[in-house]
Amino acid sequence: MTEIPEMCLALAGLLRICEPPSAALALFAGKVGPVAAWRGVVDRRAPRAVLSATAARTRNLTPEALIGQARDDLRTARAVGARVIGPDDPEWPGPAVTSFEGALARGVRGAGPPVALYLRGRSLVGLPDRGVTIVGSRASSSYGQRVAGEMSHELASRGLTVISGAAFGIDTAAHRAALVAARSQARSAIPATVAVLACGIDRAYPEANRVLLEAIAEHGTVVSEYPPGTVPARHRFLVRNRLIAALGTATVVVEAGRRSGTLSTAAAAEQLGRLVMAVPGPVTSAMSVGCHLLLADRFAQLVTGADDVLAALGRNPASVVAAEQASVPGADPDHPTDGLDLDSARVYDSLPTRGFASVEQLIAESGLQASQVVGSLAILQVHGLATQQGPSWRRILVTERG
Amino acid sequence: MTEIPEMCLALAGLLRICEPPSAALALFAGKVGPVAAWRGVVDRRAPRAVLSATAARTRNLTPEALIGQARDDLRTARAVGARVIGPDDPEWPGPAVTSFEGALARGVRGAGPPVALYLRGRSLVGLPDRGVTIVGSRASSSYGQRVAGEMSHELASRGLTVISGAAFGIDTAAHRAALVAARSQARSAIPATVAVLACGIDRAYPEANRVLLEAIAEHGTVVSEYPPGTVPARHRFLVRNRLIAALGTATVVVEAGRRSGTLSTAAAAEQLGRLVMAVPGPVTSAMSVGCHLLLADRFAQLVTGADDVLAALGRNPASVVAAEQASVPGADPDHPTDGLDLDSARVYDSLPTRGFASVEQLIAESGLQASQVVGSLAILQVHGLATQQGPSWRRILVTERG
Repeated sequence: MTEIPEMCLALAGLLRICEPPSAALALFAGKVGPVAAWRGVVDRRAPRAVLSATAARTRNLTPEALIGQARDDLRTARAVGARVIGPDDPEWPGPAVTSFEGALARGVRGAGPPVALYLRGRSLVGLPDRGVTIVGSRASSSYGQRVAGEMSHELASRGLTVISGAAFGIDTAAHRAALVAARSQARSAIPATVAVLACGIDRAYPEANRVLLEAIAEHGTVVSEYPPGTVPARHRFLVRNRLIAALGTATVVVEAGRRSGTLSTAAAAEQLGRLVMAVPGPVTSAMSVGCHLLLADRFAQLVTGADDVLAALGRNPASVVAAEQASVPGADPDHPTDGLDLDSARVYDSLPTRGFASVEQLIAESGLQASQVVGSLAILQVHGLATQQGPSWRRILVTERG
Repeated sequence: MTEIPEMCLALAGLLRICEPPSAALALFAGKVGPVAAWRGVVDRRAPRAVLSATAARTRNLTPEALIGQARDDLRTARAVGARVIGPDDPEWPGPAVTSFEGALARGVRGAGPPVALYLRGRSLVGLPDRGVTIVGSRASSSYGQRVAGEMSHELASRGLTVISGAAFGIDTAAHRAALVAARSQARSAIPATVAVLACGIDRAYPEANRVLLEAIAEHGTVVSEYPPGTVPARHRFLVRNRLIAALGTATVVVEAGRRSGTLSTAAAAEQLGRLVMAVPGPVTSAMSVGCHLLLADRFAQLVTGADDVLAALGRNPASVVAAEQASVPGADPDHPTDGLDLDSARVYDSLPTRGFASVEQLIAESGLQASQVVGSLAILQVHGLATQQGPSWRRILVTERG
């Protein structure tokens, strides 16, 4: 068996010993780092709030047993192709201005950020900036499924990432359409769609969506903050909803009944400072009542499709289309940054043509934040414009490319 | 032939000699009174702006010819059961706070109030306070017709007056449903629905709605500010739309295409300080695009039915229903004012039980404005609680009633 990195063991261990969300544990891990936090919990040398939050799942267990559990979890995760990531990981989501965890800790009352995440599939880098959350009822109408599908397909086709749960109805329609869009383009590192589970990463819930989840793991990302084996429970859906809201820069409610759980995702999005949008429908449909309530209270912005979503996000649909029709980044040797977003073009310009630069050097050179630089490097790599050697990066010259 | 009152002749004459809207003519008539204004126009002794506004239709005509035209118009109107009313008429609409003409003069840029109105059917007293304007596309969907019909039926059933045009589609659906509601209740003086024409009161446009307009004249009111014989023209629909908006305390857009003329009614309502509401629909329907634009811009309040309209107007639907289920005003001999609005109850209390009081005395006694007193007297009369003798009023005692 290969050696397990200490960080992975710590992250898996921390996810195992506490039911999310735990602001105390997340704060502690953020302060001292996951490895030290994990050691502190194992050795019972942690703040009282942390010991209290983890007591139920650590008492009667020796340090060796705790470590053994974490090891088992990682093994189970690896068996289904999952890995564990923490806030220091380059794959971790984080917007330019507000850090993902910061927003979660501040935004949702009593809800801490995730201490770590299990992942199957692609990186979460670039989220929530390039992500749009699409949610709605399980018992959706054919109208809702059509609207969710068209919106999701269009957004994914334009290079955005769709985020949703894994339920029947709107979630399923959104994922399927994003996957169709993914198949018709080379997206490489950017997930077309992200499914956030309310159970362990090794589980498929609902079971009938197992094949869908496999496809998402292949062309997108499946995410869970629960240790492997965790069964879905009612309270976990609510806790999970805050992650669904946090991973998108906007949350679009496509259909929701009067008391739909989807409305909790909209509430979380609002608390996180994300844009909340809702799709109207026939007033004669019970499945649109929740959307109409959000709109009547001016809690949500009315959107009728992907164009409205992009417009509300300040991205001109026309210019997105124009950029698509224009050259793919790197295609024009004289203007390799054509088609790149501004940040990525800036990082490209900061990359040395000879020798290598560390991420720290690129941060200093570009004047961008770490998360922006890391995200941009991933995009440049996808387009064959940058290459990595160990922790350092350099530009790929036109002459090097085929 | 019977003698024509000077006032009627003046009102008919003023409507004949100027294309509405004319702020100058309305201002002049409001200042010196319609009779003096009419004499001024006939004798060419009027403000320059008035003479200029009326020049096209008065030049080459002798005073006798002008008076003859007005006489002919009144005769044509009378032949179809229409009468002409002016701002001093008790039948004239006028809210408690802002006068109908005042709002129109101030509200809609360049649009003067009507100088007079031709009417078939019931009084406009109580409007716009008890009126809700329901408008939408001619090319409406079955969905829109259903929603308009249900909303209109419910509002008319609760004693409100529906206002619309006379077009196919939403207008027709709203009128028909209000008429159905009217047939199942004794509304007496209060019109169930009001159709505002963009042509002469003697015309039916569209021709296929002739029977509908007859029914509206019977159970509601048909209104026009055009002299008899006027043909509908594109610009008249826009001018007419300001009246449709002004006669309701709120304007509800049920369906509207992207460039629907209905949106001009919504704009007029907004300029008049009326509430603007819109009904959402499927985002896949072209007929809901205009509504969604109004909602997305937060120009309109989202409503899904009559309950939402009443709630937005500050009338609790539950209490309205409770009032309906409770006694009809005058039904309980011990509490004859039960079920009356507050103003009407106040006027009832001001009415003498012996002898008569003039409207001026009732204004002084009740502390209400003239329009409120006149409106309340009409309501009390309907419920058999007050009776008129010449210009004076008295209470009808319980013992007098059957």
